[in-house]
Amino acid sequence: MLSNEIITRVHAIIKDKDRVLADEGDRYCYAYDASFGVHVPDLVVQPMCTEEVARLMKLANEHRIPMYPRGRGTSLSGGPLPVEGGIVLDLSRWNQTLVIDEEDLVAIVSPGVITATINEKANQYGLMYPPDPSSAHVSTIGGNLAENAGGPRGLKYGVTKDYVLGLEVVTPEGEVIRTGGKTVKNVTGYDLTKLIVGSEGTLGIITEATLRLIPKPVATKTAMVIFDDLVDAGRAISHVLTSGILPSKMEIMDQSCVVAVENYQPSGLPTDIEALLLIEIDGHPAALEYEIEVVKQACHEVGAREVRVAQTKEEESDLWQARKLVSPAIVQHKPTKISEDATVPRSKIPDMFRKLKEIRETYHVDLVVFGHAGDGNLHPNIIADVRDREEMKRVEQAVEAIFKAAVELGGTLSGEHGIGTMKAPFMEMELGKIGLDMMKRMKSVWDPNNICNPGKIFPKPNQRFTLTHD
Amino acid sequence: MLSNEIITRVHAIIKDKDRVLADEGDRYCYAYDASFGVHVPDLVVQPMCTEEVARLMKLANEHRIPMYPRGRGTSLSGGPLPVEGGIVLDLSRWNQTLVIDEEDLVAIVSPGVITATINEKANQYGLMYPPDPSSAHVSTIGGNLAENAGGPRGLKYGVTKDYVLGLEVVTPEGEVIRTGGKTVKNVTGYDLTKLIVGSEGTLGIITEATLRLIPKPVATKTAMVIFDDLVDAGRAISHVLTSGILPSKMEIMDQSCVVAVENYQPSGLPTDIEALLLIEIDGHPAALEYEIEVVKQACHEVGAREVRVAQTKEEESDLWQARKLVSPAIVQHKPTKISEDATVPRSKIPDMFRKLKEIRETYHVDLVVFGHAGDGNLHPNIIADVRDREEMKRVEQAVEAIFKAAVELGGTLSGEHGIGTMKAPFMEMELGKIGLDMMKRMKSVWDPNNICNPGKIFPKPNQRFTLTHD
Repeated sequence: MLSNEIITRVHAIIKDKDRVLADEGDRYCYAYDASFGVHVPDLVVQPMCTEEVARLMKLANEHRIPMYPRGRGTSLSGGPLPVEGGIVLDLSRWNQTLVIDEEDLVAIVSPGVITATINEKANQYGLMYPPDPSSAHVSTIGGNLAENAGGPRGLKYGVTKDYVLGLEVVTPEGEVIRTGGKTVKNVTGYDLTKLIVGSEGTLGIITEATLRLIPKPVATKTAMVIFDDLVDAGRAISHVLTSGILPSKMEIMDQSCVVAVENYQPSGLPTDIEALLLIEIDGHPAALEYEIEVVKQACHEVGAREVRVAQTKEEESDLWQARKLVSPAIVQHKPTKISEDATVPRSKIPDMFRKLKEIRETYHVDLVVFGHAGDGNLHPNIIADVRDREEMKRVEQAVEAIFKAAVELGGTLSGEHGIGTMKAPFMEMELGKIGLDMMKRMKSVWDPNNICNPGKIFPKPNQRFTLTHD
Repeated sequence: MLSNEIITRVHAIIKDKDRVLADEGDRYCYAYDASFGVHVPDLVVQPMCTEEVARLMKLANEHRIPMYPRGRGTSLSGGPLPVEGGIVLDLSRWNQTLVIDEEDLVAIVSPGVITATINEKANQYGLMYPPDPSSAHVSTIGGNLAENAGGPRGLKYGVTKDYVLGLEVVTPEGEVIRTGGKTVKNVTGYDLTKLIVGSEGTLGIITEATLRLIPKPVATKTAMVIFDDLVDAGRAISHVLTSGILPSKMEIMDQSCVVAVENYQPSGLPTDIEALLLIEIDGHPAALEYEIEVVKQACHEVGAREVRVAQTKEEESDLWQARKLVSPAIVQHKPTKISEDATVPRSKIPDMFRKLKEIRETYHVDLVVFGHAGDGNLHPNIIADVRDREEMKRVEQAVEAIFKAAVELGGTLSGEHGIGTMKAPFMEMELGKIGLDMMKRMKSVWDPNNICNPGKIFPKPNQRFTLTHD
């Protein structure tokens, strides 16, 4: 618990009383995110300017208070969970700055801005902010930056990190630094910008970002491709990509996903199939006519049963709506969804599908697969009931097996969700002892008192993977 | 000087005698790069496998011997110069690995591979490695990685860092780590890959890289745009970019460059102009027909005198040849070329041109401007004679003024050449005391004995900018 002296000092920094939440009910609202575990913070504060954050961090550093930055809490890896108590820095109210600089092709944003609004505002200028995590309409850019969020467009356009030119950051010791700038090219010293993006709030608090925008493609075209064999769908991905076309999105849904979506909200998807690919290409209409034919041919060459090209904007949005419904649809069956994001090199997608099938059978778990197949970033999801202890033990074993399979295939634990608390025990498996140690050195020298999102990324001694916290 | 014991131990690591160069004549060949200053190393070794590098680094760390990694020595900022003696690690002979993995869209390379050969080999598979520094036909990928090299295509495709998925690195303490992997998405812990790329060899020695390849665009189109007013040329850049077109290249040459090229190798370029833009667009031929019209119109709208579109591949390559001849042409006049890469936000290009004009007049220097205007990465070049002490003093003042102008306009000291030794004194001006300190902390904890390319990036106490080393 925080002393009265500390709370008085917090109030001296945040003058506005309704931005300091000490009530137990309020604090409980900050004990969760979209992953597992419940951790109630000692206090919640809602800073709305850099100076407030800097003064809070100085105070916290002096008194070794754990500080947990948070946006809208959509993390699937426990990113904002206050696992060691302390103070949650709720940055979601600090959403006032969203400036589009048309000439420099950049957006300047405060941390609480909702991600999708950046792209919407950029669109008004004929520009685009490409990163599109599925939670974009709910999540804040601050959270996206901390976790280096991805999304379907990652295939062609890359992830959040690829669009960050500069940051304002409050260091764990409460100092304000500016990294990068407004230019696309910058090699002045170490790249702190790209280090901090994706560091999960463990190296400082992001208080402003300068984001790169690009001209918005004038048109899109979407094809739905149906496969009788899941492994053929995997082969189709590489085959399309080596045919000279770089689609803007390339999503996969396995049979269980398709069936779940059809049960949830029927839209005429074929359910007697093993997999379905949704492929979007973007660019100039004249080029799209040609490119969609190349995509069609490539898919047929590896055994697609059918390729349906959406003929109107409505048909196109219906197809993408089906993809969006996967998450709500699959939880109709059982209440607990464990969403993984193990990522493999593209050529290993068929192998990964085989391994996931084995895992499903070995552990008798409800495992469905969808995700951003074009960049190897699958989302194996296990549907379970957290109240069923026996089932959850099997789920834990299955998740561990998924991580191992991905790393064995030359992939990674996490493509876009982050490590947080849950995946920390597996870090050494992927990075090796020395690789992990080099990261720890950076953390210790930037945050000597370990106050910035402590308990994340780095495993504690003997920490084991759990979904149930028994 | 190195002791006999050390030299004996080096020979025990590198068994092949002709890969250990102790002869004074040989060592002198490694005292230079393409920047300023002459620093003769105590020894040159040419490792050709990871184990040799690891054992050399362990030896160096134990005995605190400065280690200077080097490719082909094309650095314009002193990157490989052995400013504190010690050992030069010449990695240019380690060029055996160049594997294109077509399915995963990656290339795996050893550090000594010549950059241009990666793209050439990728082209055989319909793929492209986009980064294209002007020295690509000479420089090694290892050097490009260390310096995060850019090039004209940076505008649309980004820089070296944007194409690195994974690295094998020998740490300053001689341990081997692997960062990243083969996947486009990876958020497992801190991004060591993007930290090490561009760290100028100060955090470890890169021994292998996994590079991302993309489908090669099927066609290109080039326009030459002529301006009577340099500032209009600056305005044209933003105007084209906000018209919805993202050119693959957008290069500028001012009048002095054009005149120099015409004197050097006449090709009918108009010399009665203030500036010339070369704009390349790439993609599908059908889209290019439309896009080149948009480019034309945008340029005319801001006062271009003429837009000439190359009608054949030959015309196109003639135009780009003129751009390539700028560097050899301008040194016909005087022997010493100081090539800067101060970079500003795109909207500040007209302001930067004005400031450069003032600097030319204030310091009476031969200042010409060309470069990658589309991303704000100008190359103001000063032509002088290093034997003329009085002139060189004025040049130093002019260069300092260029750096200040760029930072004042919200830009950066270096867009693509790196900091090295020369720009170190200006680091604090751009980064502030704390920003620089956070970088120093990382260096000190990764390389506690300061043996990895010491004397680079970080200024020594009271270090001043000099081109003459009086």
